[in-house]
Order: sequence, then C-alpha cells, then structure tokens
Amino acid sequence: MNKIGKYEFIAEPFHCDFSGHLCLGHLGNHLLNAADFHATGRGFGMKHLLGIHRAWVLSRLAIEMNEMPQQLEHFNVETWIEGAMRYFTQRNFEIIGDNGKVYGYGRSVWAMIDTETRQPADIFAIDDGAINHFIVTEKPCPIEKGDRVKMGNQAELVRTIDVYYHDIDINGHVNSIKYIEHVIDLWVIPWYRVHQIKRFDIAYVAETHQGDQLHFYREQTGDLTYCIRLVKTDQNTLQDTEVCRCKIQFT
Amino acid sequence: MNKIGKYEFIAEPFHCDFSGHLCLGHLGNHLLNAADFHATGRGFGMKHLLGIHRAWVLSRLAIEMNEMPQQLEHFNVETWIEGAMRYFTQRNFEIIGDNGKVYGYGRSVWAMIDTETRQPADIFAIDDGAINHFIVTEKPCPIEKGDRVKMGNQAELVRTIDVYYHDIDINGHVNSIKYIEHVIDLWVIPWYRVHQIKRFDIAYVAETHQGDQLHFYREQTGDLTYCIRLVKTDQNTLQDTEVCRCKIQFT
Repeated sequence: MNKIGKYEFIAEPFHCDFSGHLCLGHLGNHLLNAADFHATGRGFGMKHLLGIHRAWVLSRLAIEMNEMPQQLEHFNVETWIEGAMRYFTQRNFEIIGDNGKVYGYGRSVWAMIDTETRQPADIFAIDDGAINHFIVTEKPCPIEKGDRVKMGNQAELVRTIDVYYHDIDINGHVNSIKYIEHVIDLWVIPWYRVHQIKRFDIAYVAETHQGDQLHFYREQTGDLTYCIRLVKTDQNTLQDTEVCRCKIQFT
Repeated sequence: MNKIGKYEFIAEPFHCDFSGHLCLGHLGNHLLNAADFHATGRGFGMKHLLGIHRAWVLSRLAIEMNEMPQQLEHFNVETWIEGAMRYFTQRNFEIIGDNGKVYGYGRSVWAMIDTETRQPADIFAIDDGAINHFIVTEKPCPIEKGDRVKMGNQAELVRTIDVYYHDIDINGHVNSIKYIEHVIDLWVIPWYRVHQIKRFDIAYVAETHQGDQLHFYREQTGDLTYCIRLVKTDQNTLQDTEVCRCKIQFT
C-alpha cells in the first residue's frame, strides 16, 4: 500500500463563490475526506476506530494556497503522515492539478481520544504501532507549521450568531469546517473582489452545541492579517468558553 | 446516448447531520450537479449555453424521500427530462442505492433565459429542438408535481438573517440550495430527533444579493406541514420583495 494517498475531486458549481473559485471551506472538507480515505485504506480510519472506542480529533488545520481551483476543474489531494507521537500525528496535504500544477498545501494535527472517557489515547497502541509504517519524511510540504495564534485583549466583538441544525455533525458538535466558513463570512464580497485568502490557520479548543451562541472577536495583527477568537456562550450554564482561534492572511 | 443519466455520489461525513443522514440541502446539490452532468453530456449544459448567452434557471424543485442515505453510503442519482415546452422543461430524479433501494424522488422545473436581456428564451431554438430527442415519458416519477404554495396573511415572521459571502454563487445571487438550508435551520435539533423531512417544495421568484436581508415568514398549514415565504429587503432601495416560497412536510 502506497504511503501517500491521492484522491480526485471536482470544484462543484455550488461549492464555488461569486468569483467562480472553490470556497476554502469546501476545500477543507475535501482535505478531511482525503484524510479519512487515506486512513481507512490503511486500517486506522474513523469507522474502524469507533468500533474500538477511539476517534481522531482534528486539533489544527492550516491551508495555504497559491490559487484556488475554478468551477468544474478537477484536482487531486495527496495526503500523507509526516510524523506520529504518542498522542498526536501530523498529516500533510498537497493540492495539485492533473497537469502537475500545485494549487497549495495543507498541514494538520490530529489527536486520538478514547470515545468513552474523552481523554487522549495512545496512537501507538493501535495495531501495535502500525501507523509508524506509513510515515513519509521525504515528501516536502513547503509551508510553515502553524504557530499558536497569539492575540491581545484588543480584539473587537464583530459578530454573534446562533448555532443551527446545519452547523452540527454526527458527533453532536459544530463541525470543523463550519467554523472556517463563519469566520470567512466576516468579510464582505467587495473585500473578496480585491483580496484572496492566502493562508488560513485554525486551532480547535472546545466543542460547541446547537443552541449555543458563538461570538467572534477580531484583531488586526498585520497589514492583511487578522486573528479571530471564537467564544461560545453555553446555553445551559451561560458561561463563556473559548472554542477556537483562527488566523487569516489575505493578499 | 442514453436518455437517462446515472451518477454516483457518496454521503460525505461532513454533509451529514447529527443523526448521520445526508442533509437535504446537500442531496439537492447532488441533484443539481446530476442535472448539469446530464445536460452537458447531451449538448445543452450550462457551459455550452453561457457561450451562446443562454442559461438554465431553476424555477421549482421538489424532493420527496422515503429515507435519507447514511454517512458513507454510496447512492445514484438518475435524471431525465419528462417534458419540454418553449420556455420550461420538467426534469425528474430518482435516488437509488446500488442494491436497487429507492431513497426518494425529485421533480424540477427549469426556465431558459437570455443572459443579456434576462428574459425567457426559446428552449427549442437550441440546436434545432435537440432537447426533444431526450424526452422520457415511460419512466415513472411517482411523486406529485409541486402545486403553487398557497399562503394566507397569517404567516409569522420567525427569523431575519443577513446574506453573507457563502450564500452567493458565481451568478452573484444567493444560491438555490442555501435557501433550502436556511429554511431547514428554522427548526431545532430536538425537533429533528423525532421528525424527518418527508417532502420539500421550493418555488423561486426573485434573486437575492449580498448585503440584502432575508425575512422568513412561517405558517402552519397542516398537522406537520409548514409554508414559508422568504422576503428580502434590498439594501439599496430598502424595498421588500418576495424571493421564494417553500413547503415542508414532516413525518
């Protein structure tokens, strides 16, 4: 079995934005699908893990693009595991066209949890450390690793939304991609007419449920760089908790 | 070329709801993709039409389901043209599993417009009435045609939302599927724990742009049947205009 998985996708018309380019959230969804296809083919996919009370949890995702696929363009997502530690693995992505054109890259960090205790679980305990057979160190992923998103106290509350039915996935939480979409929606189309997203970083901290409220705090940290802290108000306790942090860089 | 097109899809994890079933909006998206694959293969797809200043505009869509595909299930969408008139065609859909299981059906009505004048255009003028070679009358679509959604004046304003970046497609309007998703979001997860959507009808009237506001007026018209009128407030004129009407039937 090849250590690197390659999966073909198409930029569907309804997944493209006003400019006819694939939306970053839908690309992120394709990356997560590719990750699960790759893991499933090698014996550590979600379905198998759930049977032994384990699950992958996405901890960080960074996507950096030269260019977005256009409507109806075919493209491939290559994915591989760069490294594994006891509680975390690093998985990388390359988004390339049939002609070899490189659209961009992704980096992600995944934790494994015990689905009963919700505590971190030992990745090497799965099939006697089988994941070590799939580590690829020779394929480059020439984008920076995601740093911790540092934010001060100057971040401004720019939007509050309610969490609805469509935000929630089978785990009962807001799905990882929906946060990205809500953050991207903080800017308007006239902005996107003259700016593209160069890089998007997200680090997940806590889970959000239907009925919670999500608050978006935004801080400009560079010429075209913004950091966003998402905070939820729990519907039962009315307590505020940080849910995730994002950094978005435009060109 | 077979008159009936058949396209395979998979219920992607992030397109499934809390219950692990494909969301109706994503199914609708697959139907629209199947429609364009079918039309493209037969010489009247969107890409070809845009070159001659024509476009298909979805006028009505009805989806009626026995059961929704579950996470990671493969399913097929069969689509065919039931009839064509000068300004409208009826296109049907059957959603079936590899094992022949019928998940449900869809019906749609499409108009053709001149993309320069935005006026209705003659469908039979395309390649000398070529569409007539693809009409299928012998394949049944055993769900009712969509009636006009009749609503009184008792409908209650239940939600107002702003139109964001992700609502807008390459035509610069709110995409057909997003309306469906926003309507479905009017109900909460505890409701969907005990009710499934049996049938969803939508009739499109006018276009919405980024910056407009969308108001949802809801009226209960049967035991488990609701009609929803969407009205936009145009950001420039501040005028209210009806955008679409939906009917949603639960079981």
